[in-house]
Amino acid sequence: MKPTIHQMILRFALPILLLPLGPALAQTDRPNVIYLLVDNWGWGDISLQGSTVPTPEIDALAAEGIRFLNFNIENQCTPTRSAIHTGRLPIRSGTQKVAAPGEPDGLAPWEYTIAELLSDAGYKTALFGKWHIGSQVGRHPSDQGYDEWWGINEGSNAAAYTATPEFDPQVAAVPHFWEGKKGAPSYETEPYNIAGKTTFDRNITDRAVNYIGRHSNGEDPFFLYVGFTQFHPPWVIHPDFEGISGAGNYSDIKYEVDHNIGRILDTLDESGIADNTIVILTGDNGPGTLPQGNGYATGEVGGSTGPWRGSLSTGFEGGLRTPAMVRWPGKIPAGFVTDEIVSVLDVYPTLANLVGESGRIPNDRPIDGVDQSSFLLGKQAKSNREHVVTFVGDDVFAVKWRDLKVHFITAEATFSEIKRTTFPQVYNIKEDPAEQFELWGNEGFAHAWVMTPVTKILSDLTQSMTAFPNIKPGQDFSGYE
Amino acid sequence: MKPTIHQMILRFALPILLLPLGPALAQTDRPNVIYLLVDNWGWGDISLQGSTVPTPEIDALAAEGIRFLNFNIENQCTPTRSAIHTGRLPIRSGTQKVAAPGEPDGLAPWEYTIAELLSDAGYKTALFGKWHIGSQVGRHPSDQGYDEWWGINEGSNAAAYTATPEFDPQVAAVPHFWEGKKGAPSYETEPYNIAGKTTFDRNITDRAVNYIGRHSNGEDPFFLYVGFTQFHPPWVIHPDFEGISGAGNYSDIKYEVDHNIGRILDTLDESGIADNTIVILTGDNGPGTLPQGNGYATGEVGGSTGPWRGSLSTGFEGGLRTPAMVRWPGKIPAGFVTDEIVSVLDVYPTLANLVGESGRIPNDRPIDGVDQSSFLLGKQAKSNREHVVTFVGDDVFAVKWRDLKVHFITAEATFSEIKRTTFPQVYNIKEDPAEQFELWGNEGFAHAWVMTPVTKILSDLTQSMTAFPNIKPGQDFSGYE
Repeated sequence: MKPTIHQMILRFALPILLLPLGPALAQTDRPNVIYLLVDNWGWGDISLQGSTVPTPEIDALAAEGIRFLNFNIENQCTPTRSAIHTGRLPIRSGTQKVAAPGEPDGLAPWEYTIAELLSDAGYKTALFGKWHIGSQVGRHPSDQGYDEWWGINEGSNAAAYTATPEFDPQVAAVPHFWEGKKGAPSYETEPYNIAGKTTFDRNITDRAVNYIGRHSNGEDPFFLYVGFTQFHPPWVIHPDFEGISGAGNYSDIKYEVDHNIGRILDTLDESGIADNTIVILTGDNGPGTLPQGNGYATGEVGGSTGPWRGSLSTGFEGGLRTPAMVRWPGKIPAGFVTDEIVSVLDVYPTLANLVGESGRIPNDRPIDGVDQSSFLLGKQAKSNREHVVTFVGDDVFAVKWRDLKVHFITAEATFSEIKRTTFPQVYNIKEDPAEQFELWGNEGFAHAWVMTPVTKILSDLTQSMTAFPNIKPGQDFSGYE
Repeated sequence: MKPTIHQMILRFALPILLLPLGPALAQTDRPNVIYLLVDNWGWGDISLQGSTVPTPEIDALAAEGIRFLNFNIENQCTPTRSAIHTGRLPIRSGTQKVAAPGEPDGLAPWEYTIAELLSDAGYKTALFGKWHIGSQVGRHPSDQGYDEWWGINEGSNAAAYTATPEFDPQVAAVPHFWEGKKGAPSYETEPYNIAGKTTFDRNITDRAVNYIGRHSNGEDPFFLYVGFTQFHPPWVIHPDFEGISGAGNYSDIKYEVDHNIGRILDTLDESGIADNTIVILTGDNGPGTLPQGNGYATGEVGGSTGPWRGSLSTGFEGGLRTPAMVRWPGKIPAGFVTDEIVSVLDVYPTLANLVGESGRIPNDRPIDGVDQSSFLLGKQAKSNREHVVTFVGDDVFAVKWRDLKVHFITAEATFSEIKRTTFPQVYNIKEDPAEQFELWGNEGFAHAWVMTPVTKILSDLTQSMTAFPNIKPGQDFSGYE
């Protein structure tokens, strides 16, 4: 396939565009940035939001920063990780869904990730843990701005593949851990299996702690991305935490995750760089609910969405909201809790602004995220965002606009059927967080007016995607690079 | 629409390609072939597979040949008949579903059917009964390789049309029996109605018996295709069998079908040609289950699928498996029962190989069937097939690969709603024939690796269909012939 004009412009224009265009902070002033991403984390899985298992480390982090009650993620692992890295709707980059094993996948190579942006600005960059936006050689973290990485390039499902009785290495690849450094192809190391997943998050934490230690001397700032894998099946637990809750695997994992996050925060304190480090902690999608009668003990079916309906891969609030908090001591007001709408797409432009590198944000492509830096810094009361468009795969399932939510296609839970309704369904999520009372039908079309702003949102998006065509999942550009 | 280059090549290249290319058996050695196709037959509708109504003639046939427990058909009448005749996925030929009355339909004219192949090899060819892969003049059996034919060109539903009170011959065609001979347009004879269906299978059998008698002199071998129509609604019964079971219409029909098959087998014995005749007996799709309250006596809702879930037009095993057996005395091991995966698509290349005419199989188009002749002849232990792709209409509902089955779209029964799920559903059909325990969700994504072989299968298919574009149902080529 020939590249479009737009794609060719992108390719050749980048080196020029990447000159620093805006005023920058002095190199030494720039804060370190740590992004802690917890896989498949339910909104209700922290004690501040309803968990009966205590999560003291996470609660303390929240108390020292801003906590978002209405932080909107994409619907699966891959699209959220893509949104974090690009600030763009994943469907633009071919990353709108988790690729099936064997399918080509990954972020279009010319996406300019937050890791590339910060690396070009002089940051040291590292990723430990799960990547999941490119499993092919050439589409790994070290090809997208990270100086170094170690972990898995695919999803956590892979840990269980070789344990299924029908598995045949002749037809399906044996999953592996990978590592790589910028400038060379990444390579696989040990097999990734159940035993490997059991100790994976511990090893991720060890590497993160070590990395912070190595980079706490104040020379160059660093960007560290930590992709934890717990809460995602298979629900195995590090031996130190097995049975600790007395309430089943999922609850044990809460102890483990909280502990690992605590170790990283402690390292920042011990290294004396906590005040100059922005720490972001979020999940990647709603919790995956397993059907009843699954192979896990104690009838567990997954994480808690708190008061919200739905879960992973749905357009309901339980599939959109995740625990989310940002700490930057002395800059972001401590203990602030907000219900303003914020999106994971906003991380990219907001971080670029917070570290004084907004001039590096590409202006040759649509950036769907909006800069929330003034809101985070307490300089304005409202978020700069009033809506969220929720894609599940290729389809727009829902649009959230202020307190109203409009559904076009619905799926009740992770494994349930997909339904299309003749008229959109509308809920007021402020008054009706569980999305139980449908307004369009029950109130005789009185809420149909909400389609005016929603149609405008979708039509603007269509216009933008016509001007800048989307990349197909796994689209091969090897002939053009 | 203009024909594609590929289609034009096909049209003009055929006369050259049809020269005999491979080594052939001496004319006199070649066996006769009889294909007995039973409409809407459930896997469990023979006594060897669970029927309480005895089916002694069929059981005897099975005992003298190979019986397939895992013989996979297409999902409706039309696509299975297309697959038998072409060895190609029906969607390639515009025959992926039963056309609605009034819709243009039928096999693309340049398909090279098994009847054409055998006719070109010197076989006499005849079809009696139901055709259902072309109701338009020019798309009848005698246009696709049969020397002669008699029966119906459409489905058995048509028998009931004129009995509905609203029927208006001004707006809908009165169904008829048809007949035709090679080289001339087919023509309609008597109206086809409830009375006509009552005695239809008897008349089909009479003609088959007569045909065998006329062709048992050992000159040219013959290919006889018998399309029985019983088991398909309307469930009327020949007067000789009405009430014979004491258990309702469907059970009465079992006696009738078994008797008719017995008459044909007896004729082979009496003519002294049984040893030199390959007899194939299969159904065309899972049994159609009627909704409760369907107007039939004794609460019957259709045939039995045995242990398998689903029915006609579903992707579950009950919609895929049919009774199936092949007898060739002295060549195919008698009494052999196998669970190896075989597809109705394999009939075409397998028959061509069994009669020594494999050189006539076209090589200018994809043949989706695989040659199973060595497996049938007992020369190898395994089938040459590990997977089946199940289309229902235009959509891939499921892929069976070894013991695993992956569903993308599901329908529970013939008249139930079609559901799409966010993640594929996976079952192990060996351990869980009723497809009750879903593995993907219940075992926490551990089986996701099965998408590696399945994606490969589907991607190869997409590639093949890109190179050789599919024909639309009923596509009109009249401008190009």
